[in-house]
Amino acid sequence: MGYFDAASGAPLHPVARQALLASLDEGWADPARLYREGRRARMLLDAAREAAAEAVGCRVDELVFTSSGSRAVHTGVAGALAGRRRVGRHLIVSAVEHSSVLHSAEAHEADGGSVTQVPVDRGGAVDPVVYGDALRADTALACLQSANHEVGTEQPVAAVAKLCRQAGVPVLVDAAQSLGWGPVDGDWSLLTASAHKWGGPSGVGLLVVRKGVRFASQGPVDERESGRAPGFENIPAIVAAAASLRAVRAEAAGEAVRLRELTDRIRARVPRLVTDAEVVGDPVRRLPGVVTFSCLYVDGEALLHELDREGFSVSSGSSCTSSTLTPSHVLRAMGVLSEGNVRVSLPPGTAEEDVERFLAVLPRAVTAVREKLGAPVSKTVVREADVLVVDSLGKRCPIPVIELAKVIGDVPVGGLVRILSDDEAARLDIPAWCEMRNQEYVGEEPADRGTAYLIRRAT
Amino acid sequence: MGYFDAASGAPLHPVARQALLASLDEGWADPARLYREGRRARMLLDAAREAAAEAVGCRVDELVFTSSGSRAVHTGVAGALAGRRRVGRHLIVSAVEHSSVLHSAEAHEADGGSVTQVPVDRGGAVDPVVYGDALRADTALACLQSANHEVGTEQPVAAVAKLCRQAGVPVLVDAAQSLGWGPVDGDWSLLTASAHKWGGPSGVGLLVVRKGVRFASQGPVDERESGRAPGFENIPAIVAAAASLRAVRAEAAGEAVRLRELTDRIRARVPRLVTDAEVVGDPVRRLPGVVTFSCLYVDGEALLHELDREGFSVSSGSSCTSSTLTPSHVLRAMGVLSEGNVRVSLPPGTAEEDVERFLAVLPRAVTAVREKLGAPVSKTVVREADVLVVDSLGKRCPIPVIELAKVIGDVPVGGLVRILSDDEAARLDIPAWCEMRNQEYVGEEPADRGTAYLIRRAT
Repeated sequence: MGYFDAASGAPLHPVARQALLASLDEGWADPARLYREGRRARMLLDAAREAAAEAVGCRVDELVFTSSGSRAVHTGVAGALAGRRRVGRHLIVSAVEHSSVLHSAEAHEADGGSVTQVPVDRGGAVDPVVYGDALRADTALACLQSANHEVGTEQPVAAVAKLCRQAGVPVLVDAAQSLGWGPVDGDWSLLTASAHKWGGPSGVGLLVVRKGVRFASQGPVDERESGRAPGFENIPAIVAAAASLRAVRAEAAGEAVRLRELTDRIRARVPRLVTDAEVVGDPVRRLPGVVTFSCLYVDGEALLHELDREGFSVSSGSSCTSSTLTPSHVLRAMGVLSEGNVRVSLPPGTAEEDVERFLAVLPRAVTAVREKLGAPVSKTVVREADVLVVDSLGKRCPIPVIELAKVIGDVPVGGLVRILSDDEAARLDIPAWCEMRNQEYVGEEPADRGTAYLIRRAT
Repeated sequence: MGYFDAASGAPLHPVARQALLASLDEGWADPARLYREGRRARMLLDAAREAAAEAVGCRVDELVFTSSGSRAVHTGVAGALAGRRRVGRHLIVSAVEHSSVLHSAEAHEADGGSVTQVPVDRGGAVDPVVYGDALRADTALACLQSANHEVGTEQPVAAVAKLCRQAGVPVLVDAAQSLGWGPVDGDWSLLTASAHKWGGPSGVGLLVVRKGVRFASQGPVDERESGRAPGFENIPAIVAAAASLRAVRAEAAGEAVRLRELTDRIRARVPRLVTDAEVVGDPVRRLPGVVTFSCLYVDGEALLHELDREGFSVSSGSSCTSSTLTPSHVLRAMGVLSEGNVRVSLPPGTAEEDVERFLAVLPRAVTAVREKLGAPVSKTVVREADVLVVDSLGKRCPIPVIELAKVIGDVPVGGLVRILSDDEAARLDIPAWCEMRNQEYVGEEPADRGTAYLIRRAT
């Protein structure tokens, strides 16, 4: 099995499956009812909450179950912002948060609030000092993920939480990617997570709100889950989520070492196996199972198809996949190459030989895609005075970069290439290519159509 | 098995269980992904949507899956109101809607909108003419359940939808109680339902928005479920929901006849078996499996415990249950007795002998509760001029009615009894008792503490 996309969703853990089956028979009734089926459901729900609270490291009455991780984030952000509305309406997020956090921030802005996005370094991490500088007198809430979902980089949550605590600002930690590996350190105020990321079933998220944190649920609520998650509780799934969290935690220490060794292999060997590949994300402070790299002159979607044909399921932050038309906001915020991007996220239990087989297959797959893409011959190169102009209008990533690479040798050192492109990915990938190739990226300027990117040949 | 609370939640249908198990292995991955596990998940999701749309009688692209029926209502009401914000901010609901609709209405009012509650008759149904009269030039949305969840009464949805259509107002139908029995007739605009009410798993609701209905999702959204239900789709549960809807529909015609006969028995025999019992809800236009009755001089919670001890799980709209301190808003809106209230809602497949056993057990259970409650001797009866005054302050339902019944014979025909009570249920139950006993309810007036209820002995 070559399912290497655990960061999107892990296959159901055997313990989750077992717990789900058992509680389908015991936990289907309304836990608010007084009769035996209701009491049984209530007991299962209470026990699951205790197990989950223990794994998080919080009080039982601080934790509610939501219908997904995204829902936990939406509810948590909205409730914390509303709880501190008198203080102000300023929200801080990192630039590389999960889309659920960024969607919450967009909704907050649309509603008249203000948002600061804290930038990240090329490794994908925020600098606590920079994060702290974003704090204002009217800051109602600060959000920071425990670790990034696309490149695996761990964030300095404890340091940021300390600065926020000094400023009296609550911190919401999206722990979706890390909760299966261990509790989140530091003095956070709210925490969210998603069961299907650790091998639990779909349909269960966690929202933890520490005692003393001001919180006002928004929208219609009911009497369930402390008024924070309306609707009938999905108890079989909740039981399975809690049981599997306990199970993956029991295996976490050993499995982290093993997966880290496997992703270290990928980190080390991809740049040797594939020319013009760049591994992105922090090499040390990172999740055990995630490794992300980008390959020049490769169409991300085509590469996913090649790898899928070979039996490997991975994801891509490239712009050229059918579900996205712009490069991943994470890669953009890091300022790294997005073309030919591949995220490998190994589920616990991944076999060493599957990783080795992936490393054997990858170079062939990249070469196959590059060969297909090598075909287009640039017929639109015009020399204007001392500038070589390449018209890549209407061409999608990675064609503009391929055309740039083809012509850079045609100008003398110190000469200029001007690429016209209307593909959003070019804005990220042309500067990234320049950095990888030690060429000088001069800058961009508006053109009649699209944007003109200027590159000076440096070597 | 005496689980007679299907209106709260039905046990998992065998087809749902089977489908859930099968799709745990096939449907756990992200349907937005391009690799094989993602494509498989997408196919399952698409097939489930087709099956559900067929059962509802709508287009596939009109139906999204939400995380619960309540969530479908909250999203549907908020989105439809926002979509017609320019028209106005007036919302119409019936007085007997499910709490999720009423919670949405409360949130709308808190946000500055206006709400009209349309009253119901003693059978629990709205009058289409009265409903139509509530329509205003600024009405943005009208909500009407297909059938009531507490008394089973069917609402005249088609007639109301016709009036609304003439006025250009969209109608949202909460079909949670009826969708398993058949599609909702009439020209409705939005529809909501909940899978665990028809034997599907928890964690799945349906929201249908007809093409052409203006709809603007509120709060953070993402790319899933047409931007109407954010968060990772719970595909195994969705597949199980759709499969079980199809299965219960296949059995619906025959099972409706059978359950209707069983509830008819209860309707007919309870008043003969239990003195001072009143069956409530429309005797004809009603759901097949639901029958509700109230018993004078009975504490609802004590009766639930007696029945639970005998192996029967039912629910109660009485005020005297641990989860509620006021009588059910449905019984209140109908103006019927709430004390000793019992809702029997039979799941499909209920055995005839279980119903017979229930009818055998019920009189004993009621008698046991009445004997326990018969004890309190009214020491607080004072004769003032021609009025007998009973001080029931601090006494909970059903004590005030018991004390009234004890003293009514102590005044001459034409004489007055004045009951002082601070229990909210008395406002409903004293007039209801008068109607059952052919006594004259004169009215209420404020007292130093609580409320004074005046009753004239008529017979």
